[in-house]
Amino acid sequence: MSFRRLVSDELQHLKPEKEQGLVVVITGHGKGKTTAALGMALRAYGHGQKVTMIQFMKGDMHAGEWDAVAKLGEQIELIATGRGFCGLQGNPYSRQEHRENAQAALALAREKMVAGACDLLILDEINNALHLKLVDLEQVLDLVRSKPAGLHLVLTGRDAKAAVIELADTVSEVREIKHAYRRGIEPQPGVDY
Amino acid sequence: MSFRRLVSDELQHLKPEKEQGLVVVITGHGKGKTTAALGMALRAYGHGQKVTMIQFMKGDMHAGEWDAVAKLGEQIELIATGRGFCGLQGNPYSRQEHRENAQAALALAREKMVAGACDLLILDEINNALHLKLVDLEQVLDLVRSKPAGLHLVLTGRDAKAAVIELADTVSEVREIKHAYRRGIEPQPGVDY
Repeated sequence: MSFRRLVSDELQHLKPEKEQGLVVVITGHGKGKTTAALGMALRAYGHGQKVTMIQFMKGDMHAGEWDAVAKLGEQIELIATGRGFCGLQGNPYSRQEHRENAQAALALAREKMVAGACDLLILDEINNALHLKLVDLEQVLDLVRSKPAGLHLVLTGRDAKAAVIELADTVSEVREIKHAYRRGIEPQPGVDY
Repeated sequence: MSFRRLVSDELQHLKPEKEQGLVVVITGHGKGKTTAALGMALRAYGHGQKVTMIQFMKGDMHAGEWDAVAKLGEQIELIATGRGFCGLQGNPYSRQEHRENAQAALALAREKMVAGACDLLILDEINNALHLKLVDLEQVLDLVRSKPAGLHLVLTGRDAKAAVIELADTVSEVREIKHAYRRGIEPQPGVDY
């Protein structure tokens, strides 16, 4: 057993009188957006919920969460749909190619939503994809408005649109105070990817 | 297999020329600090790293991450050391009692560090425990300064001290833009705990 408590007081179990699916937006330029979504996935996994995470733009570069999810069985599903960050130096694909991938990701999100395939649906980097015009504002707003009442929907990525924030229940902005890469430290496995 | 890519381009694998352990601080008053740390734990798990998470103050209230970790086997260890948030309305324990728990948590952190028990050590809510004077600034600074070069050390919790930020490589401040509870929505499993 890899969990233990050091105190033996009686344990409290929260249970909301009213269970309801939330819309959560995690934006900002600091480190911690995708990892915050992954942490919610892990919590939901602990509660026995089903989780689907769709990564926009990501898919060209191996990440630790991919292997983690592959080890966890069918309760968490992670689909990387992209070809790297559109417009990032060195990325060889056109905006139109990135847009096709992002549109496929959005269609998949809607499909999962309609099918009731999960309790927690994470759209990783969708705010960024929207900012880069790979998906349209009306498409995202329509998706959020179509959310079944019981589903938790999490939208991550920098530069979230005000209209998306308006529809959300909980919104955090992750600000960068410092980042190791600014001192020339390369991305490290386990922390950065 | 619960992971898949929608594109079939060649996959890139990052690997830093120099692997080095980072000090990461996740602070601020918004939602997403503990979950960001849990997401790093999941990434590290994917990379085959060993993870220890020590939760300060938490331990009185059941959380989804506890059950998740219990399901993941020995590679992730989570120890909840506390009796709830010191000073929070309704919490029946004295500051001295909370301090004893936090001191035990700190001693455990040092023990794990000295033993080389893990690749990623997460001290959840330690910034908050420090702010509440359950541990002392010099104790925390000394712990951070004693970090083995290869260990990733993550410190979460609101109100991180400037001197701790000074020692860190990567620091994010999670700002609250909106929170569901301000509209009377109760904490929801999978998202909030």
